[in-house]
Amino acid sequence: MSKEIPYKIYLEESEMPKQWYNVRADMKNKPAPLLNPGTHEPMTVEELSGVFCRELAEQELNDKDPYIDIPQEILDFYKMYRPSPLVRAYCLEKALGTPAKIYYKFEGNNTSGSHKLNSAIAQAYYAKKQGLKGVTTETGAGQWGTALSMACAYLGLDCKVYMVKVSYEQKPFRREVMRTYGADVTPSPSNTTNIGRKILEQFPGTTGSLGCAISEAVEVAVSSEGYRYVLGSVLSQVLLHQSVIGLETMAACDKYDIKPDVIIGCAGGGSNLGGLISPFMGRKLRGEADYEFIAVEPASCPSLTRGKYAYDFCDTGMVCPLAKMYTLGSGFIPSANHAGGLRYHGMSSVVSQLYDDGLITARSVEQTSVFEAAEKFARVEGILPAPESSHAIRVAIDEALKCKETGEEKTILFGLTGTGYFDMVAYQKYNDHEMSDYIPSDEEIAASLAKLPKF
Amino acid sequence: MSKEIPYKIYLEESEMPKQWYNVRADMKNKPAPLLNPGTHEPMTVEELSGVFCRELAEQELNDKDPYIDIPQEILDFYKMYRPSPLVRAYCLEKALGTPAKIYYKFEGNNTSGSHKLNSAIAQAYYAKKQGLKGVTTETGAGQWGTALSMACAYLGLDCKVYMVKVSYEQKPFRREVMRTYGADVTPSPSNTTNIGRKILEQFPGTTGSLGCAISEAVEVAVSSEGYRYVLGSVLSQVLLHQSVIGLETMAACDKYDIKPDVIIGCAGGGSNLGGLISPFMGRKLRGEADYEFIAVEPASCPSLTRGKYAYDFCDTGMVCPLAKMYTLGSGFIPSANHAGGLRYHGMSSVVSQLYDDGLITARSVEQTSVFEAAEKFARVEGILPAPESSHAIRVAIDEALKCKETGEEKTILFGLTGTGYFDMVAYQKYNDHEMSDYIPSDEEIAASLAKLPKF
Repeated sequence: MSKEIPYKIYLEESEMPKQWYNVRADMKNKPAPLLNPGTHEPMTVEELSGVFCRELAEQELNDKDPYIDIPQEILDFYKMYRPSPLVRAYCLEKALGTPAKIYYKFEGNNTSGSHKLNSAIAQAYYAKKQGLKGVTTETGAGQWGTALSMACAYLGLDCKVYMVKVSYEQKPFRREVMRTYGADVTPSPSNTTNIGRKILEQFPGTTGSLGCAISEAVEVAVSSEGYRYVLGSVLSQVLLHQSVIGLETMAACDKYDIKPDVIIGCAGGGSNLGGLISPFMGRKLRGEADYEFIAVEPASCPSLTRGKYAYDFCDTGMVCPLAKMYTLGSGFIPSANHAGGLRYHGMSSVVSQLYDDGLITARSVEQTSVFEAAEKFARVEGILPAPESSHAIRVAIDEALKCKETGEEKTILFGLTGTGYFDMVAYQKYNDHEMSDYIPSDEEIAASLAKLPKF
Repeated sequence: MSKEIPYKIYLEESEMPKQWYNVRADMKNKPAPLLNPGTHEPMTVEELSGVFCRELAEQELNDKDPYIDIPQEILDFYKMYRPSPLVRAYCLEKALGTPAKIYYKFEGNNTSGSHKLNSAIAQAYYAKKQGLKGVTTETGAGQWGTALSMACAYLGLDCKVYMVKVSYEQKPFRREVMRTYGADVTPSPSNTTNIGRKILEQFPGTTGSLGCAISEAVEVAVSSEGYRYVLGSVLSQVLLHQSVIGLETMAACDKYDIKPDVIIGCAGGGSNLGGLISPFMGRKLRGEADYEFIAVEPASCPSLTRGKYAYDFCDTGMVCPLAKMYTLGSGFIPSANHAGGLRYHGMSSVVSQLYDDGLITARSVEQTSVFEAAEKFARVEGILPAPESSHAIRVAIDEALKCKETGEEKTILFGLTGTGYFDMVAYQKYNDHEMSDYIPSDEEIAASLAKLPKF
C-alpha cells in the first residue's frame, strides 16, 4: 500500500541523517590515491595536512568506514536550511504529458542558492575546531564562495575567495552577497599571487578557470599562518559531506515507497552528483537494488564523455596533488561563451572510478537546449533553476519524453542543485536569442590532453 | 506538555488552510467603503468590475463572510511552494543573548522571492476563469511583478508590468526574471500612457512612484479589450488572499502550543502585515486571545506614523477609486535614496482602520539601522533578507533586546516576507558605508497632505 505522495516531502528533524555515507567503503575498485606531485607516491595524511585541516585530510583518505558521524554543531547548522524538499514534479509531468513520475531533490532554498553549503559548513567547522584563523578557496559560478562565506560568518572565521574572472564580471552581485557575509573576494587570475601573475603574463586577457583560481587559493593558504585551503567539489571529502543529499532523498523515497529507476545529476566536479547518488550506489554495489545513474555535463566542458581517465593536476598551477580522474587536461579553459559553473577540467575521482567501472553513464548537452529546459521548468514548476542544475533538467525531460513514446511509467529522480537568481546575464542572453553553443574541437581537446603529466 | 520545537515547522498538506480568512467580517468598525471619484458614492461591484475581475470585485466589497473557499486550482499552485516554514530563530536568540523566543514566518522560498505570489495566483486565476486575455499591474521593488509573471506563465495569461523607474534601473535582473516568465516590463513613468506622459512633462527626471505606476497600469487595463488591472497590496482582496500566511502560522503555533505575545510585520501597502495578523486579529476581536501587533514602516515613507487618516486617491493619476486610509497624499514620492519597496503613499484601509481603532501600533525605522539588522540576521540565521522584511527584523531585534534588559521571556513573531537577492545594489551601498537616511520634513509632508481631495 503506497501513501499519497505530497508535492513536497520534508523529513522530520528526527528522520534527518546523523551520519554521512562514504561510498568508497563499498566500492570494489577504490578510487586511485592522490599522488604527491614531486615523488609520485600516494599522499599521506601528514602531507595533506599542510593544505587541508587534519580531520578533512583523514576523511580524504578514508576509503574504509562506510559511515562517519556528523558533528552536532554541523547538524545544528543543517537544521537552519535542511531537510531540503524532495519534490514531486506534478506540474512538469502534466506539461510534458508523460506517464513517467518525476521527482527532484531541491537544494536551492538557502542563501548560497545551492547544495554547496552542505560541505562549506563541514569544512569551516573542522577549520574552526583546529583553531585556524581562516580559509581560502576558489569559486566559479559563485555558489561555493557564497556558501563558504556564510559558513565562515556563522563560525567567525576569515574567508578569502578567488573568483573566476568571467563569473566575477558577470555576477557583480554575487560578490556583494559574499561581502555581506564578510568575505574578501578577488577576481582570478589576479596579481596577488605568484601563479596568478604568471598566468596573467602567459595569457593576458584570460577569463580564468577554476583550475587557475584553485592554484591561487592554495598558494595563499600554504603561505599564510593559520590558514588552510578548502575546495567545494572534486574531493572525496566533499562527496562525503554531500551524501546528506542522497541520504535525505533515500529516506524520503523509502518513507513513501518511491523506487527511482533513473537518477540524474549535473556534473562539474561531481559534488552534487556524487552526493545525490552515493547511498543509492551503495545499495547497487551491495546488490540490494538497481538504478540507472546519469551524469550530465556541458558539451563545452565534457570531461567524462570526451576526456581521458588519467592522473592529472587538479589545478592549472600544478601545485596540488595529482588525482586520477576523467580530465580534459589541467590547462583546458572552457569557452567564455559557456554560462554558469560546471567549468572544471576534471572530475571527482570517486565519480570517475564509478564511471570507468560502468556503474554510471554520462551525457553532454548543449547550452541553448539547457536554457530551453530551464525556461520550461521555471514556468511550470515555479522555480528559476541555476544553469548548472538545468543540465539535469534537460536530461530528465528527455527521459520523460522517451517514456511518453514508449508508455513506460519510469520513476525519474534528479538533483535540482540550485537557483538561478544570480545568473540573469545568461538568462538575458537566452531571452534575447543571443545565446549560442560551443563545442570544443577534437584538436583542441587533444592538444590539452597532450600536456597531461607523464610518468 | 509542550512538544519540542523544531528549527522549522512545516505543516502537512492536510493541515494547510482550505479557506481564506476575511478579518473584515469580525471588525466592529468596518473599513470605510471605496468611493467613486466622480460621485463620491460607494463603489458598486458593477463599477469595480470595469477595473477588476468580477469575483475579485466581489471579494473587495465583502465585509460579511469570515471564510472564503480557496479554489482547488489555487490550492494546487500553493502546494508548489507552500506551506512556508515557521522558523524558530534559535541562532538569532543566542547571538542576542535574549530570553525571548523569536519566530519568523518565512515567505521567501519561491522564485518571486516573497509572499506576493499568494495573491498573484489568486488574481490571475480569477482573470483566467473570467476568460480574460491578460492583466496589467505595477511593481515597486519587483517582487509583485515577478510573482504575477509567474502566475500568468503558469496559467497562460498575458502580463504587462509597469515598474517604478528607480527599481527598474537598480534591479535590471528583476526585469529578466519577469521576461523569463514571459512578461512585458516597462519603466514608469513611461510615454506609453497619457498619465505617464503627463507626469514626465510635469516632473522630468522623476524616479517614479508606486502611485504613478498604478495609474499607468490602470489606464492600459481599462483601455484594452480583455484586460483587467491587478494590484499586489493595499486592497482588501489582497489581504484576504494573504491571510494564508497568518492561517498557516496560527495552525503551526497551535500545533506546537506557541503563544505569540508580539506580532510584527513590515508595512508598505499592508499586504504582508494584514495577511500575517488577520487570523490572530480575529481572535483578538472575538475576545479569544490578546496580542500586541506592530506595523513597521520606513522613516522615509511614514504613512501610519506621520500620515493622515482621510479619503485619498490610491494612485498619482487620480483615476482609481478613493480609499479612506492613512496617507501621505497621493503626490508623495519617497526619496530615491530609500532602498527597496514600502514606497507607497497610503496604507490598506483594513490596516488603517485597525490602527485607528488602536488595535495595532506602528513604528518607523531608519534605513541604515534596518540594514544593520539585516546583516546581523543574515550572518546568524543564514538567510539574506529583503530590505522590506528587514524593517520587521529591526523591530523584532529591538523587542528581543528589551526582553534581555527586563528578563521577560516574551514570544516574538515576525513576518520575514522575502529574500534580498535582487537588492544587492542597496546592500553594496551599505557594505561601502555609502548608505544614508532620509526623513521627510514636516513641511514636505504638510505640503503633500494639503493636496488631499476635499469633499
